[in-house]
Formats: sequence, structure tokens, C-alpha cells
Amino acid sequence: MSEKIKIVNDKKLDCKIISFTNFNCKLNSGSNLNELKIAYKTYGELNKKKDNAILICHALTGDQYVSDINPISKKIGWWSRMVGPNKPIDTNKFFVICSNSLGGCSGTTGPKEIDPDTNKIFGATFPSITIQDIVKVQNYLIDALNIEKLFAVIGGSMGAMQVLQWTIDYPEKVLNAIHIAGALKHSAQNIAFHEVGRQAIMNDESWLKGNYSEKKIIPERGLAIARMIAHITYLSEDGMHRKFGRRLQSRDIISFGFDADFQIESYLRHQGRSFVERFDANSYLYLTRAMDYFDLSDIFSKSVEFSSVSNQHINYLIISFTSDWLFPTNENKEIVKILSYFTRNVSFTEIDTDKGHDSFLLEEPELDYTIQGFLKSNYEKVDPNE
Amino acid sequence: MSEKIKIVNDKKLDCKIISFTNFNCKLNSGSNLNELKIAYKTYGELNKKKDNAILICHALTGDQYVSDINPISKKIGWWSRMVGPNKPIDTNKFFVICSNSLGGCSGTTGPKEIDPDTNKIFGATFPSITIQDIVKVQNYLIDALNIEKLFAVIGGSMGAMQVLQWTIDYPEKVLNAIHIAGALKHSAQNIAFHEVGRQAIMNDESWLKGNYSEKKIIPERGLAIARMIAHITYLSEDGMHRKFGRRLQSRDIISFGFDADFQIESYLRHQGRSFVERFDANSYLYLTRAMDYFDLSDIFSKSVEFSSVSNQHINYLIISFTSDWLFPTNENKEIVKILSYFTRNVSFTEIDTDKGHDSFLLEEPELDYTIQGFLKSNYEKVDPNE
Repeated sequence: MSEKIKIVNDKKLDCKIISFTNFNCKLNSGSNLNELKIAYKTYGELNKKKDNAILICHALTGDQYVSDINPISKKIGWWSRMVGPNKPIDTNKFFVICSNSLGGCSGTTGPKEIDPDTNKIFGATFPSITIQDIVKVQNYLIDALNIEKLFAVIGGSMGAMQVLQWTIDYPEKVLNAIHIAGALKHSAQNIAFHEVGRQAIMNDESWLKGNYSEKKIIPERGLAIARMIAHITYLSEDGMHRKFGRRLQSRDIISFGFDADFQIESYLRHQGRSFVERFDANSYLYLTRAMDYFDLSDIFSKSVEFSSVSNQHINYLIISFTSDWLFPTNENKEIVKILSYFTRNVSFTEIDTDKGHDSFLLEEPELDYTIQGFLKSNYEKVDPNE
Repeated sequence: MSEKIKIVNDKKLDCKIISFTNFNCKLNSGSNLNELKIAYKTYGELNKKKDNAILICHALTGDQYVSDINPISKKIGWWSRMVGPNKPIDTNKFFVICSNSLGGCSGTTGPKEIDPDTNKIFGATFPSITIQDIVKVQNYLIDALNIEKLFAVIGGSMGAMQVLQWTIDYPEKVLNAIHIAGALKHSAQNIAFHEVGRQAIMNDESWLKGNYSEKKIIPERGLAIARMIAHITYLSEDGMHRKFGRRLQSRDIISFGFDADFQIESYLRHQGRSFVERFDANSYLYLTRAMDYFDLSDIFSKSVEFSSVSNQHINYLIISFTSDWLFPTNENKEIVKILSYFTRNVSFTEIDTDKGHDSFLLEEPELDYTIQGFLKSNYEKVDPNE
């Protein structure tokens, strides 16, 4: 039987779901996915020339709900301040696509979904995935939407890894690439923090070797700990000091106990609790692992290999934040250095902020101007009537 | 009944234990300890003038076994390279004392010990403690040994906090103070990391609200996670990169799974496992809390209060490490700045190393020279025949 593609509107998820059946999606691990679902949202309209599409790649715990209300959390989408009519990524002009990542937990094929071979939830039988696999799946969607060229691919953190991967694997389909707070490869320290988070989840007695969903329980303690650890790394020391310092929570003097005396403690506990409500523990394992495996340093360091990649036409914009210690400026600059060495078109901006790695998700006007300006000037080149 | 003091040799613990009964040790929390045991080791001989005693204050997970073999772990003492005959802290010359911290788990009164009031293990009924309480207990020991003046008080990390506290609470008993990799107060980021570690322990189903010892079990998963988190903070990103990078553990290619693919993962898992064998989970809770509560910024910022502290005679040596991001140079310098402002005698050295906060425990020749030189020059002032 030949491949079948179907697109439906999922009312509950308030997004589209494209499904591929009789399919053969070969992953880096060697495993195959014979069926594939991709949950995605679009904002704005694809123009006739189909030259105004922008793909946004979400970060580790992100989802397809970039703008408007997220139907699951009932909160505003994670990049609402960036994406919308008259916003820096202007949906009056651009057709914005964001799909839930392969391995994610908002409708795309992942450990939380049903394995069509067994009719049971995948859980930990889900195959291991890489950033390259995630991008491959995004490419299926772009192909199915009959978009030949993406005006831009944009992403921060894990999303930035995907942006870089797009320009290596499908360079002919990318005109502009905005890479925010990423790196050529995941560092030892970042792997270390992820590993502790994974151990916290897998050590939770409710994890049940990944089969918790069958028992309708959640390894919530482990997942909350993993989130708390990660959350510290998303902030900067200065930002944390400014926001919380040693201020006490709802009391005048310390309690001499293990309650949350300090505001930073309450804040982290809250972050842990609310994360459990919206994210799947197994997805967290698979996606952190994909990030750990990410390493493009090989192809970026070899002249012959890199020269064979047809990405000469791509305009790269690399953005870093001064207080980001997870994906620090020097790691972002490494990419700029190599791209410049290979005479690719690359712009670089380091934004001065104390908000740490999370800056790309927060109110940071310089980020807005930078992205808006880059998109505008490059779009005018394509369409001089603009 | 009046206070009773007794000193015994504990063969199993291979150290001395001093016990105080019919006692009244009032803690910062308002609680009292009516009995107190302090487990301690001494190295070298106290001279007749009793002017050659050095108190070493251990760090969070340290103990009294500074030098020689630790009878519990069977490993060499934690500062053997620093303390011993002809070593930087020379036991041919100095009488070195190190006591297990109040709240610790190597023989001193703490959550692992029996509550004399109930004849049950304290567990989480142990009163909350502070760095000031820890120092108060050390002072009982020094008094009981009839030592009027300590030639020096030395410590790194949590030990550095104690050093600073000694010079505020018992300044007349301290001649020299060596403060390594500490701070005036515990930062928001440090509290955050501690809080996640505590949550990992208290969320472990084996913690049993602190009563795990009665059931002869250990919250080993939570304690291992806490150690893994902390261990990342003890290293620097550069050091971790140099030592581990993205090198794989016992394999040529990634496993596409959740085993320890990378060396850094195996290393952290090993750190977690071995910590569980030697440290008590409740002690970890109490001591991290004591560090979080530490904040001398008040007294150090007020002229009148600080001027009333008789520490004009103390020679301070403040040491920091370039790659320590837990107690960074700027926080150590803050102490130097204030001591200088109040015209106290203070020397400062920043040691260039990529070994992070843990540098004070590792092979770092400049640290050895600095400590040795400082002790030698100040001891010659006291005893010109030296």
C-alpha cells in the first residue's frame, strides 16, 4: 500500500493534525515509524507565491501554541509577544507554522501516544530520537503543505539546534535562519544537568520503567525535581538575585524548618508543580536526550563536508544573551566564527540582559527589534513591493 | 545537677568523643540541647604555651577525618594533602583540631543520633541549626580543651562561613582566619540548588518524613539526586569540558537510550551512589539549611555594630578561585572590601584554576603555598624562635 496523508482539525487540541500512514520514517537510531502524526498550528495566510512561510521550532518544553490561547494550559501562547498581527513576526505578512516536536506531548507522535503496532501507549518503548529526526519530521509537514521554500526558520534553545540542523539537512528550503541562544553541540555541563533531571524522573517509583500512563499515574515528584533543576539553569544568578534575593516568603523571620522560607524556594516549587500538569515525563526524557546527542561540530569543522552543503544563500542571524550560562555567548559566537570562515552570510547580536537563557521568551525589546529588522530587510529583498 | 564533661576514645569511629551532660546549649531556633556529643580528631601536639592550635572547619559533606585514613570510608582523609607532617598545615608545628559539625553524621549530635529525651533517633525532630550554632558547639570543645586562643581557624565553603562567624562571635579567641571560597551570605542561586536537593530527598518515598532510620531504610534515590545536582555546582564548566567533554563511556557510538552514554553521566551516577554510602540524608537537609540561613551582611554593613566586634587583631586571609561560580570571587571580595573599609588586617588571593568550587579540596599548589606562607609568617610573629 502506498503512503497516505490526511489533515484533520482536532477540536480538543485546537490545532491541525496531519497523519501519515503506510509510511516509512527511518530514524537515526535505525528504528522506523510506519505511522506519524504531527500536531501543528498556523497563523496568518500563505500567499499565492508561497514565499511568506516561517517555521518556528519550539524549545524543550514548548509546543505548537505559539500565539493566542493554549487550549490545554488556558494560558497565552509561549511567544504571543513575538508572533501575531503587527508583532515582530507579523502574521499580517507572514504565514507562521509551528508543529509540536516529534517525541513531544501535545499531539505529535511521541511516547505519550498510541503505538499503532501494539495499540498501547508507547511509553519507554518509543524509539530514541535526535534533533535530526525532529527536523526530518518537520520537513514532512512542510512538504505536505506544498511549501518549497521557507522564508525563515526560527528557534531558541532546542529550537535553535533545529534551525541549525535545517540549514545543513535541507538548505535549499531555507532562505533565512534565526538561531537564538543555541550551540553547535550540547556541553558537558548541560548534559550533566539533563542527566540529573532524567535520573530524578526514572528514580521516581511512579515512573514504572516508563509505563506509568497505563496505570494512570504520573511520576510527578521526579518530573517536578527535573523541572526545578532546569529552571535554575534558565535564569541567571544576577536575575535571580534581583528578582528574589534572600527575601522571605509570606513571613517576617525564618521558620527554622524545611518549609519554603525564601521566595526563590516557593517560586521553584511552583514551577515544579505547574510543569507536571502540562508536560509528559517520558517526553522530557526523550527530548533532553535528543538535545544531549546534538553535535554538529563535526560537519562545521570540516571544509570539504561543509562546502558540500548548499547553504551559501542562507542569511543567518545568531543571537545570544549576556547572562545566558546554559548556551553562553562564546558558544553562539563559535557558530558565527565558522560561518564567517566559510564566507556564509551571518549577522550576530549579543543582547545585554540579566534574564539568562529564558530571555528569548521574555520581554526583551532588543530581541524584538533585531528579529523584526532582520525579517523586514530580507523580505524586502524578496518582494520589493513590500 | 551541674554540667558534666567526659572525653572518650571511640575505637569504631577512630576519634575522640567529648560529651556534655546536664547541659544547656541554646540554639538560634530557641530549642535547647541538654546533652551534646562532639566527635573530633586531633593531629600533632598542643605545645606548653597552648599557642599552636588550629581549628579546621569542614565543608557540607566533610567530617573530622582531615588526614590519615577515614575509618568509615576507608579512604584517605579529605585534606590529607594539606594537613600532616611537613605539609602546608604542618602537624610537626601545629596542633590541628577538626570536629564533626553539629547536625553532621560522623559522631557529633545530629539527626542520625539518639535523642536522649526519647531514646529514639532524632530524625526530623532534630532542631533546626545555623552556622552560628555550629560554631558555638566548636567553641565548647575548644573551651573544654583549655585552649584560650586558636592560632588559626581555617575552612572552605561551609567551613569558610564558620571561619567568618568565629571572628564575629569569639574574636578574642582567634588570631588568624583563613576563609576559602565563601561569602557573606548564601545567594539566591545557591539556596535554589540546595532547595532542589532537599526536595529530591523529602520527595523520596523512603524518606518517611525523616524517620527512615527506624525502618532501617535510606532515601538513597533522593540523596543521590541531591548529590548529583550539588556536584555539578562544585565543578566549573571549563573543568568539566576538559575532564569529560562529550566523550562516551565504554562505547564507540551513542546507545540511543537512557544508559550513561557520556562519561559525565557515569561520573555523576557514581558520585550519587558513593555519597549515599557515607552520608545521612537528614544531615544533608539540616546542614544545607544552615548554609541557606547564613547571612552576616547585616553586621558587616553597620559601622556601629561592626566596630564593637573586637577583631582588630585578627589577620584575615580570603581566598577565592577564578572558576568557582558557587562562591565566586566577587562575593569573596565583598568581604575583603568591608574588612578593608573597617581597617582590619586582610590579605586576598584569587587563584587561577578551572577546577571550580572544589579547588580547595584538590591539587592546587598555589593554595598550598598561600596557606603555608600565611601561617608561617604569622607564626613567626608569635614565636620568633620559629
